[in-house]
Amino acid sequence: MYRVDLNCDLGESFGSYKLGMDEEILPYVTSVNIACGFHAGDPSVMRRTVQLALAAGTAIGAHPGLPDLIGFGRRNMDISTQDAHDMVVYQIGALDAFVRAEGGTLQHVKPHGALYNMAAKRKDLSEAIAQAVYKVNPELILFGLSGSELIRAGEAIGLQTAREVFADRTYEQDGSLTPRSQPDALIKDHDQAISQVMRMIREGVVRSREGQEIRIQADTVCIHGDGPQALEFARQIRKSCEEAGIELVAAGQTS
Amino acid sequence: MYRVDLNCDLGESFGSYKLGMDEEILPYVTSVNIACGFHAGDPSVMRRTVQLALAAGTAIGAHPGLPDLIGFGRRNMDISTQDAHDMVVYQIGALDAFVRAEGGTLQHVKPHGALYNMAAKRKDLSEAIAQAVYKVNPELILFGLSGSELIRAGEAIGLQTAREVFADRTYEQDGSLTPRSQPDALIKDHDQAISQVMRMIREGVVRSREGQEIRIQADTVCIHGDGPQALEFARQIRKSCEEAGIELVAAGQTS
Amino acid sequence: MYRVDLNCDLGESFGSYKLGMDEEILPYVTSVNIACGFHAGDPSVMRRTVQLALAAGTAIGAHPGLPDLIGFGRRNMDISTQDAHDMVVYQIGALDAFVRAEGGTLQHVKPHGALYNMAAKRKDLSEAIAQAVYKVNPELILFGLSGSELIRAGEAIGLQTAREVFADRTYEQDGSLTPRSQPDALIKDHDQAISQVMRMIREGVVRSREGQEIRIQADTVCIHGDGPQALEFARQIRKSCEEAGIELVAAGQTS
Amino acid sequence: MYRVDLNCDLGESFGSYKLGMDEEILPYVTSVNIACGFHAGDPSVMRRTVQLALAAGTAIGAHPGLPDLIGFGRRNMDISTQDAHDMVVYQIGALDAFVRAEGGTLQHVKPHGALYNMAAKRKDLSEAIAQAVYKVNPELILFGLSGSELIRAGEAIGLQTAREVFADRTYEQDGSLTPRSQPDALIKDHDQAISQVMRMIREGVVRSREGQEIRIQADTVCIHGDGPQALEFARQIRKSCEEAGIELVAAGQTS
Repeated sequence: MYRVDLNCDLGESFGSYKLGMDEEILPYVTSVNIACGFHAGDPSVMRRTVQLALAAGTAIGAHPGLPDLIGFGRRNMDISTQDAHDMVVYQIGALDAFVRAEGGTLQHVKPHGALYNMAAKRKDLSEAIAQAVYKVNPELILFGLSGSELIRAGEAIGLQTAREVFADRTYEQDGSLTPRSQPDALIKDHDQAISQVMRMIREGVVRSREGQEIRIQADTVCIHGDGPQALEFARQIRKSCEEAGIELVAAGQTS
Repeated sequence: MYRVDLNCDLGESFGSYKLGMDEEILPYVTSVNIACGFHAGDPSVMRRTVQLALAAGTAIGAHPGLPDLIGFGRRNMDISTQDAHDMVVYQIGALDAFVRAEGGTLQHVKPHGALYNMAAKRKDLSEAIAQAVYKVNPELILFGLSGSELIRAGEAIGLQTAREVFADRTYEQDGSLTPRSQPDALIKDHDQAISQVMRMIREGVVRSREGQEIRIQADTVCIHGDGPQALEFARQIRKSCEEAGIELVAAGQTS
Repeated sequence: MYRVDLNCDLGESFGSYKLGMDEEILPYVTSVNIACGFHAGDPSVMRRTVQLALAAGTAIGAHPGLPDLIGFGRRNMDISTQDAHDMVVYQIGALDAFVRAEGGTLQHVKPHGALYNMAAKRKDLSEAIAQAVYKVNPELILFGLSGSELIRAGEAIGLQTAREVFADRTYEQDGSLTPRSQPDALIKDHDQAISQVMRMIREGVVRSREGQEIRIQADTVCIHGDGPQALEFARQIRKSCEEAGIELVAAGQTS
Repeated sequence: MYRVDLNCDLGESFGSYKLGMDEEILPYVTSVNIACGFHAGDPSVMRRTVQLALAAGTAIGAHPGLPDLIGFGRRNMDISTQDAHDMVVYQIGALDAFVRAEGGTLQHVKPHGALYNMAAKRKDLSEAIAQAVYKVNPELILFGLSGSELIRAGEAIGLQTAREVFADRTYEQDGSLTPRSQPDALIKDHDQAISQVMRMIREGVVRSREGQEIRIQADTVCIHGDGPQALEFARQIRKSCEEAGIELVAAGQTS
């Protein structure tokens, strides 16, 4: 029997600014990644989002990002590995305090945006992040791009990891995501995207952009929650999984 | 036998900016309050300061402040009680993560600057802060101005509190600190200041600005570490306590 | 013949966060107040908003606020008059650079939120703000609450002022706005609100909450642009003015 | 007769944080680059620094940086050219307002840190920055690394430029600065550094790290003001120039 986690970014509002459809996407996912105030989120948004996730029974993860609110944490920054380590410790702690204050338990950590992408490719940065997670709490699960340096660093230090795959992104021959600068980086056809994600979960393979089948491990699928179309797509992925007998459980309950 | 805690603010540097004489003041105090990134401090400063305090064997507290880096958290802001609660949870969590990552235990929470002063007088704000501390961890000790609303709120919710006194500040008839806008708010004579703090510790009284003796409880004494004169004064207070047979221990070991 | 300016806050988005209906409200107003990055707005939002306003032929003002992005500049802060002066100079300059870069001319300055409200009542703060505006450019028009300290300070230093009135707010006996904490602070009936604004423009009077008619000068009317209902209300005010033969012109063309 | 400008970064303090020796370095330089609040500086620091420079009769430039206070604007960020343009317009405007408010005239713009270094090598970024400067005020002088893309972009758009050289840095064969990651990037011997800067000014050549003489134009020399040794070095450079009959004038008076 197959099992997979469906995760989604949550709590990306800030002050008077509302972003995302947090309440609408919650029923479709099993884990949420909550922004920690560096690229999005603020203390009050974090508290409300934690309360929302706990009420829905969804597993909670910290979603630390670069200190770049204007750029939403999506612009690469030339930070040192020590800076990466420290900002991850800080953000995990901040979110964890809300989770503890509300009586819950933090399940995982998933770096956001540029930090996620830089960590996927850089061993030194991944080791710094993995060490930060491990030192705060070795029971935390590290979410990272399937096949990435971040997953390797997490495994090396002794963390449980969740290898993340994307339904609507194409893959390169080496298992990395096709950069968004390429015209065919996004899979816009819902059926094709769902077909891709089903194969990744059940067969552990994905067809690369070059047309070859490559191995890929899928512990968790990234779900978007920013728009009516994203919600509909989330609903379809969930439905397809259920019809295929794939059990949807949070990463912390998978192992 | 008398016991008292000597506490000092630490970790107030930020990025390339250095503030305070952290290493120099550490040998004189038993507890330190570490800034959490809102009014001062950044993730790397926090990590280094935690490491420094643990190496010195000094007890560590979180020092949450208002989100006002330019104003160093010293300007009153008209925040809601909910905002106060949330920003305190956030900052405790951030610092606690560094303490845990380095193998230590967080001892206490002391609000900073305007947040401390507003909480001293406002019951609603104090209750929000006390609740934030309690919800994150009921074992934490709440530091507040002796006789203040913050101490009352901490006791009411079931937290251990540490009633803080000041050697170099004059007191009003109601036990509050003379506002700095008054000409005689500061005691500049070291002997007079030390004499005041000794009486507060041993006799539980202080002579108010109006000349009357009022009751005051001294669990912890605020020590400044921002300049050569402050260091010399810290040395004198410590020496006077030792000569008077007053045991200097961190608040968490007092009770 | 009567003349009045209709003004609206614009450019309150930030990074990935969208706020307001800037394009939709523009056709209804004659002046816009553009956020300058302290309480809302960022450099790119400012440039785009300036381009939008210039394309619409609307007069442009700087909308400086407190440095409080999380609180959207709506929380009072205990800033010094010098701080107020400096932050207003800074923000006027930042916006003016975009206006100049795009070939336009800055018309006015209207403080935002808590800065506006504090300045309405405090002479020292108003003088600091008026001086900041005057020193950057004495040709700028200062927008402030009709009858407020800010208007008095502007006139005293020699600035042209625009006395602002609100259609949907009730007034106290002394000409100040009823605080929002009061249940009848807002006029929810559109007809009543439009009737109030018409009388203010044409007769220079408003009926206070206590039921007495008081004198009020209306050079500019504050229009909101944050929701479909606000847009409809803006349309109605504009229509009522046009039907009453009131000329709608930017404050800089009124005198 | 030779002429050169000596420039120094100024106004890098922030809130309660003091950085640099602004008053001490001023007598040695002819132009100052004042931080604009993104990587350092705040509105009050900017006003005071402008007042200081005007009192000293030193020419003033804006020193815009990346929005990275923690990293002091020294960490590369993957910003778009449009973002670069907009943040430069914003920061020039903010500083210019203080200069105008105090009765002075802004002379130049010199990007800071990572923005300066990225612009030195990237044509697209340089064009965006040059355009920002030109659109705010075509009379401004653009300071950039001698021989860099930024200088080329400034000349191409029609700005006066000032080609900057460094006394204490070694040069590569292509005229770029040796990266600081290299062991011999810094010239620590004062005599050697002064000898290098004298040759650059008078002969227009510098010996590269590889030992060959390359052409270099020196309109302005970067002077540091962050420490007693830097002050002494500034004094020596100034003295050597005066003894060699090199006229020291602000870039705006050179042409």
